[in-house]
Amino acid sequence: MVGGGQGAFIGAVHRMAARLDGAFTLVAGALSSAPDRARASGAELGLDPARTYTSFEEMAKREARRKDGIEAVAIVTPNHLHAEPAMAFLRRGIHVICDKPLTATMAEARQLARAAEKSGALFILTHNYTGYPMVRQARAMVAAGDIGQLRLVQVEYAQDWLTERVEATGSRQAEWRTDPARSGQGGALGDIGTHAFNLAAFVTGEDPAALSADLSSFVPGRPLDDNAHILLRYASGARGMLWASQVAPGNENGLRLRVYGDRGGLEWSQEEPNRLWFTPFGEQKRLITRGGAGVLAPAARVTRVPAGHPEGYLEAFATLYLEAARAIHARQAATGTGTGTGTGTGPDPAVTYPTLDDGLKGMRFIAAAVASSKRNAAWVSL
Amino acid sequence: MVGGGQGAFIGAVHRMAARLDGAFTLVAGALSSAPDRARASGAELGLDPARTYTSFEEMAKREARRKDGIEAVAIVTPNHLHAEPAMAFLRRGIHVICDKPLTATMAEARQLARAAEKSGALFILTHNYTGYPMVRQARAMVAAGDIGQLRLVQVEYAQDWLTERVEATGSRQAEWRTDPARSGQGGALGDIGTHAFNLAAFVTGEDPAALSADLSSFVPGRPLDDNAHILLRYASGARGMLWASQVAPGNENGLRLRVYGDRGGLEWSQEEPNRLWFTPFGEQKRLITRGGAGVLAPAARVTRVPAGHPEGYLEAFATLYLEAARAIHARQAATGTGTGTGTGTGPDPAVTYPTLDDGLKGMRFIAAAVASSKRNAAWVSL
Amino acid sequence: MVGGGQGAFIGAVHRMAARLDGAFTLVAGALSSAPDRARASGAELGLDPARTYTSFEEMAKREARRKDGIEAVAIVTPNHLHAEPAMAFLRRGIHVICDKPLTATMAEARQLARAAEKSGALFILTHNYTGYPMVRQARAMVAAGDIGQLRLVQVEYAQDWLTERVEATGSRQAEWRTDPARSGQGGALGDIGTHAFNLAAFVTGEDPAALSADLSSFVPGRPLDDNAHILLRYASGARGMLWASQVAPGNENGLRLRVYGDRGGLEWSQEEPNRLWFTPFGEQKRLITRGGAGVLAPAARVTRVPAGHPEGYLEAFATLYLEAARAIHARQAATGTGTGTGTGTGPDPAVTYPTLDDGLKGMRFIAAAVASSKRNAAWVSL
Amino acid sequence: MVGGGQGAFIGAVHRMAARLDGAFTLVAGALSSAPDRARASGAELGLDPARTYTSFEEMAKREARRKDGIEAVAIVTPNHLHAEPAMAFLRRGIHVICDKPLTATMAEARQLARAAEKSGALFILTHNYTGYPMVRQARAMVAAGDIGQLRLVQVEYAQDWLTERVEATGSRQAEWRTDPARSGQGGALGDIGTHAFNLAAFVTGEDPAALSADLSSFVPGRPLDDNAHILLRYASGARGMLWASQVAPGNENGLRLRVYGDRGGLEWSQEEPNRLWFTPFGEQKRLITRGGAGVLAPAARVTRVPAGHPEGYLEAFATLYLEAARAIHARQAATGTGTGTGTGTGPDPAVTYPTLDDGLKGMRFIAAAVASSKRNAAWVSL
Repeated sequence: MVGGGQGAFIGAVHRMAARLDGAFTLVAGALSSAPDRARASGAELGLDPARTYTSFEEMAKREARRKDGIEAVAIVTPNHLHAEPAMAFLRRGIHVICDKPLTATMAEARQLARAAEKSGALFILTHNYTGYPMVRQARAMVAAGDIGQLRLVQVEYAQDWLTERVEATGSRQAEWRTDPARSGQGGALGDIGTHAFNLAAFVTGEDPAALSADLSSFVPGRPLDDNAHILLRYASGARGMLWASQVAPGNENGLRLRVYGDRGGLEWSQEEPNRLWFTPFGEQKRLITRGGAGVLAPAARVTRVPAGHPEGYLEAFATLYLEAARAIHARQAATGTGTGTGTGTGPDPAVTYPTLDDGLKGMRFIAAAVASSKRNAAWVSL
Repeated sequence: MVGGGQGAFIGAVHRMAARLDGAFTLVAGALSSAPDRARASGAELGLDPARTYTSFEEMAKREARRKDGIEAVAIVTPNHLHAEPAMAFLRRGIHVICDKPLTATMAEARQLARAAEKSGALFILTHNYTGYPMVRQARAMVAAGDIGQLRLVQVEYAQDWLTERVEATGSRQAEWRTDPARSGQGGALGDIGTHAFNLAAFVTGEDPAALSADLSSFVPGRPLDDNAHILLRYASGARGMLWASQVAPGNENGLRLRVYGDRGGLEWSQEEPNRLWFTPFGEQKRLITRGGAGVLAPAARVTRVPAGHPEGYLEAFATLYLEAARAIHARQAATGTGTGTGTGTGPDPAVTYPTLDDGLKGMRFIAAAVASSKRNAAWVSL
Repeated sequence: MVGGGQGAFIGAVHRMAARLDGAFTLVAGALSSAPDRARASGAELGLDPARTYTSFEEMAKREARRKDGIEAVAIVTPNHLHAEPAMAFLRRGIHVICDKPLTATMAEARQLARAAEKSGALFILTHNYTGYPMVRQARAMVAAGDIGQLRLVQVEYAQDWLTERVEATGSRQAEWRTDPARSGQGGALGDIGTHAFNLAAFVTGEDPAALSADLSSFVPGRPLDDNAHILLRYASGARGMLWASQVAPGNENGLRLRVYGDRGGLEWSQEEPNRLWFTPFGEQKRLITRGGAGVLAPAARVTRVPAGHPEGYLEAFATLYLEAARAIHARQAATGTGTGTGTGTGPDPAVTYPTLDDGLKGMRFIAAAVASSKRNAAWVSL
Repeated sequence: MVGGGQGAFIGAVHRMAARLDGAFTLVAGALSSAPDRARASGAELGLDPARTYTSFEEMAKREARRKDGIEAVAIVTPNHLHAEPAMAFLRRGIHVICDKPLTATMAEARQLARAAEKSGALFILTHNYTGYPMVRQARAMVAAGDIGQLRLVQVEYAQDWLTERVEATGSRQAEWRTDPARSGQGGALGDIGTHAFNLAAFVTGEDPAALSADLSSFVPGRPLDDNAHILLRYASGARGMLWASQVAPGNENGLRLRVYGDRGGLEWSQEEPNRLWFTPFGEQKRLITRGGAGVLAPAARVTRVPAGHPEGYLEAFATLYLEAARAIHARQAATGTGTGTGTGTGPDPAVTYPTLDDGLKGMRFIAAAVASSKRNAAWVSL
């Protein structure tokens, strides 16, 4: 793991997600760029001091040389520290599981894309909401034609934790997320807007062709947007609205997707993730529950416990780790490498995870939205 | 009543609303422009045949001459038949209760405005959702500063009944609503978008300064929009999104408003009208119920039954009739006219209803949205 | 109307319900046993002073003699004042619409039953929750076999307004409801338990054969129960639980019914009355909405406005008045009496309302529950 | 682990729960009494064949002798196979984490209790719902007096998976749960009724003094109850209702608790576990969210991810494992034993988990309910 030392948030999430299904064991880390914190964090997590590194470069180099070196690395640093570590590991054939958005700048994103292309290793981007079974159910239903021809995408991700200027009062999470040097040019846009954008694409199977964005920074002194109002147009003729906000009091992690076609609609909300509303036009509304009646194979294969026993955020996150493990095992089986004894002995077409390509799309989304907003919400192609 | 004969929908709603609180009695009508249907409808409603008219002009003239002539008229015709009848009655000093949107064209709207100005009679526009107690509660809370400085308005009105081309298969309601000659230039925009627009203004006390609209007609052959995606900007710096759709399967009358300020938020949905969520920033969410704890005077005065006994659409509609009655009685008391024995003996500042001015704002909203959409969603001032 | 003068609650509800559909006009009243209040109340409601009576006996006598005398009377007094007025009007052939429970004592109930049997007039008991369209939908679905053989009835009616001893601090509503002399031997049991009992029977079409009741008076000094825990057994083998409480903080009018058979279940809650959950075993849950897809004739015929526009408590109450009007017109048509010009020209088998027989069942329910509780929750036959 | 081999359900849940927080590693198992399945299951889980046992007795003996022997064992067998394995490990000082209900018979339960008393090892019973943060919040609020003096307990656990006779058609889960030889004398009563009973006690801090139970077996040929209707009486004067059913179509894992005191109420539902309704009498309803405002220390200390990112069933289950680990470390620190390097260096009073005593209470609950039901729902002391 790179990043995720003491005081970090998402690192612990990644560790729990990696552990849940027993597919990964944490054995090495460059947990902080501050040597003291790196060492203390490693000790706290029970890492071998010899594999507790103080720089990702060193970690990549040394682990690549070890016989029992890591098979994959999780990169859980702020956005501006994604590209370099990712390239360092990819270069050495170590698989990369990386947090989103892909990078802080478009230039880094392109560089990373080239590095990934050259590498034999896999790149998995943790757009974790795609791991929810009911999100996969929605994707499968759209693909099966259950809502007919897509017309409307209403997607939103609303939070409230940046309603006040907490970045000025010691919140480390808020500090880097509102700092263009570390986050890139997107604020709420990059942090959660990309999740909403990715979720809509994952479920509908369509990418917007153009957008019109009106970004705001409501909190005085904040250099990045904390609210994004975006209109979407699709090549197919579908239209959409995307709202991302971190200043909407009462919203915790209000990621919500509604899609409508000419035959029906689907509604899903992250805060009630085990439920999916299906509304075939002219019929009664149906509530599809995780593990319940009518669940399709892509949802069933990522379900752990029976209907009515809620699975949550960590399980969805863990699903991406499990998919990563399956993909890695398949790759190893194909190339004859790896120490894994995984069950995957060949590429499984059902294995699904966000890729570098999804990361590039997210970066183009951020860039287009910023450009549009600067031009008074003019339409910008994606 | 003008309009509302056999086969009509909203006429019956107006009659129930007028009856509920006993403030009005239906005594005369020009219920249809088709003489046979006018007479049959009048008979069905138990009207005196002598007061069952076949034209609004005749009705206005004769009722104005009667000693026991009507005090007010309800105009419940399609949009293109609002202005002329309204002017006919206003000219004769008869109060007008008129359905929305104000008229089919801006020219008519201006003409009507001038007629109303000259008349001593009142004009009440039935933006009926403003009659819900919890909408009035929201308005009072915003005015009291409970959410602080307004930042965000997320308003939507989603339906699904025009998902297919029902106007081609005999639905009278759909026919005129998708016909520019009868509806004016707004489809979903005029029919329900104006309700959403009015509701947001009613609650926030702010009118947007500009909008950017992307209108669509998803159903082939439909000349008016059936979906409207609109961005809003307010002079105060607030921003908003408005979505109106009649092609979103699974939505019946999904009018929903969420407003956020720098201190808190409010959420209300028409399909659960007795509940209002209040989310002061950093505190627990609170559910305010009609008739329950913390209800302010403007909500309490339009509440009929105790908390937990749901009031609905007809009650909210009836509240506008009751407000109209109160305003009319106050006007009569002030001018010494009228046969009413109402309790209102002076103007009551609490009496609240949408006026001709709100109607003009709605018309400007439609015109601006259509203009914006034609110019590729450019910003248009309101 | 008998009762319902100034300061009363349910009288105003009856008046609104009677007015909504235009089927009744209030023309006479014995609104209070206090002459001054009776007269003031009559004036406030615009009644002819000649028909504003100070005793129900006088009203019955005089109205029966008038050519334009009332066709029906609404009795909205406390329970101990139901039987005598009802008998006075029934005796004179005037139809009676009476609030529930039927009477304060079993003896009165039996006497009233005999009076009703002898009279040619109708008796309608306002178990108003049976007027909700989705309750009628549930009843029709059970009758159609949609849930299969009935197994379980879980019904509850929870309120919180008697959590503290408000009867000691001036609440007139609380005073008589906690006074055995005026309420009879049931507290929460009679006031709301009978509604729950009636609702379950209305929907399932089955009456319990026996019950076991544990009644409590949690508030010190309260002579009647404020909480009732009851087990039910049906002759068919079905079992049930009934909970009625007026001391459950947070519950406003939480009347909720769940019934389960060997093929499916139904769930309905009075606070969201426009929705009915249908859960066929092994299939997805379906949300049936008033006016929406799959609504059966018995629900459709009591529906006023389209799906998504909520109807509430007053509409359900009004439905009983409308049914009463239809039944009265049919009776008049059959007997050649009456001044009505109603559309009903013959008995309509779809007309449905609670009768004296339902009132007797409610009285037996109260008596059995009190007897059971006194015998330590022993089973008592119904 | 004892039990939990191929084809089992709850074993996999225990393993995920044990892994999530990294507090336990699975190193040995007697996963099935069928030698082949035991070995295959062990291999699948990557266990050392030398520590893959075919009997719990052998496992207990050998592991106790190893220097690196297990510190704790998880017993996840059907009810009739809890007592003997538990005693085998307790006797050797190995801590026991055991599924509920405690045993199949009261005799076994008492025997196990004596064994536990003599042993220095800990016994943790996985009443897993007590691990939900909002359940701990509810418990803390009741203890803090937030609802005042307890009056009412309404608790239910409704499922539908035994609506039909699936035990006759190959469902292994259904087979043993409906078999008195393996389950004991409780059907739904033991399987889920004990959870409901335990949850109510955990939150309220009170145990009922007596119960009256009406048990049913609705499905023909089923020897154990599939529905339990139970009335509760508390020494404090509080009263309760408990409903457990496995034949209520549409209910997946509908564990729901409502408690009411003289000052307020609390409501929690397992299917929306991150939310807790708090209803102080006379005030607005408040929605307390996991990780949100007003969360007390006992809830906060078992929370992993921020508000709005749902935690579910596995997290709650994992919390019991984490509490077990903390308790074991504390015990080891106190006694100077153990190989653990845990952070707990002394007994932490905040550590909370269900104990053998809770198991005994559950067994008495089952026995009392069965006895009461046999005596026509007579009151039986607990």
